[in-house]
Amino acid sequence: MATLKISSPQNQHIKHIVALQQKSQLRREENLVVVEGLRELQHCSNAGHTLKQVYYCPTMINAEQLPANSDAQVIEVTREVYDKIAYRGSTEGIIALVEPRHYSLNDIALGDSPLIAVLESVEKPGNIGAVLRSADAAHATAVVVCDPLTDLYNPNLIRSSLGAIFTVPCVACDSHECIKFLKDNNIQILTAQLQDSKPYYDTDMRSATAIVMGTESTGLTSAWRQAADAHIRIPMGGSLDSLNVSVSAAILLFEAVRQRQQQAK
Amino acid sequence: MATLKISSPQNQHIKHIVALQQKSQLRREENLVVVEGLRELQHCSNAGHTLKQVYYCPTMINAEQLPANSDAQVIEVTREVYDKIAYRGSTEGIIALVEPRHYSLNDIALGDSPLIAVLESVEKPGNIGAVLRSADAAHATAVVVCDPLTDLYNPNLIRSSLGAIFTVPCVACDSHECIKFLKDNNIQILTAQLQDSKPYYDTDMRSATAIVMGTESTGLTSAWRQAADAHIRIPMGGSLDSLNVSVSAAILLFEAVRQRQQQAK
Repeated sequence: MATLKISSPQNQHIKHIVALQQKSQLRREENLVVVEGLRELQHCSNAGHTLKQVYYCPTMINAEQLPANSDAQVIEVTREVYDKIAYRGSTEGIIALVEPRHYSLNDIALGDSPLIAVLESVEKPGNIGAVLRSADAAHATAVVVCDPLTDLYNPNLIRSSLGAIFTVPCVACDSHECIKFLKDNNIQILTAQLQDSKPYYDTDMRSATAIVMGTESTGLTSAWRQAADAHIRIPMGGSLDSLNVSVSAAILLFEAVRQRQQQAK
Repeated sequence: MATLKISSPQNQHIKHIVALQQKSQLRREENLVVVEGLRELQHCSNAGHTLKQVYYCPTMINAEQLPANSDAQVIEVTREVYDKIAYRGSTEGIIALVEPRHYSLNDIALGDSPLIAVLESVEKPGNIGAVLRSADAAHATAVVVCDPLTDLYNPNLIRSSLGAIFTVPCVACDSHECIKFLKDNNIQILTAQLQDSKPYYDTDMRSATAIVMGTESTGLTSAWRQAADAHIRIPMGGSLDSLNVSVSAAILLFEAVRQRQQQAK
């Protein structure tokens, strides 16, 4: 199965992988990203992203376990080489170069009553990844990352999403473009904000809905607050003044799930 | 205000702080823990834990900002010394030795319709801290950590809780003790599990309720599953098979908040 074996950490392929992990500009220029882990790669392959090269370490994983549905070049590496390219502590011996599909707003299959999570200027890749995991669980239609401060294929983002970056359609665009898209498609805009808002559970989320969240520190810009059909808040009952954005996203998205499921009965 | 100034990282006080950060056995023996950050220390002091010594770096924080309501010894340290004891990257120039209060089950002020989060054998301190943050936001009555694999004052736990370890009564005990306590107090036990369960939103959480969660990997032991009044699940609508425990806790606790608020109208 393997056509190439690499045992030197100085090999050009290996240096290339490390550079792609570290440099977002290189990822953009080559339209190549690095994906690690068996589940992550299965999600990635199932979602129609193209696996170009699969690197695996035969002392860690059997060749039969590699993703079957790909025409990728398969390359065997030693443990020493693998440890150089592995990003995670606990890892499974498989890493691949992937040509990602890029979704635009018009690629989102809206269907009936879409449920979209929108993140404005959320900074930490780990937080965006965690939101994607919540969005996958709530079976959200899409996640839109507006005015992104990180690229969607940052290794930290992929890792913290546990592969949900490949299971939930994820679009990066600017806020004005996103607001126009939502208005044009009659999707109500609910902005999460503490001021001038009502509890989220007093808001009807059964029709087409976008839930918009900003950063913990600065919240949403006025463009979003003015575009909103309603301002909603998670009532903070204790002493702290904020929740992690992935926790907020889960609470709000699952309220939509609850309302829609209970209506269906 | 300061009675002592320390400029040497080799000072015995400084070595003692580092040892307390690293060694849970020492924390237990001396009943002393290390708490860092202004908000965290304010929560800590407000909750009645005793601040014994406060170390601050005057180039990072003004002496007037130090917690007022404490009789702690105040010690000034240089930036070099501070950097040796600071646990976090972004930090505020204040760190203290605290004598923590230890809650037992009988210390929990149950009041009307308590809402308790129970974690069984959750391993990562960061996850327990994040659950505490969710529990604070939902104004949970208490968090009970059963059969803990970490101590409650692990630096990672304090940090990820953003101080919620001091705002939410938190008890460590064994599972059998906790089950007996809940039964004796007529608190319904809802266990989060995928098998043999119904969606959480179809479960009445308005009366006294404990929501019990296990680890992502192994779930709950049979002791809890058998003790349960109902088994509940968060329906997983996507491709991944689990949520982070702090996200699950937030979804379930806020469903209780929603039911109770909407009943009250």
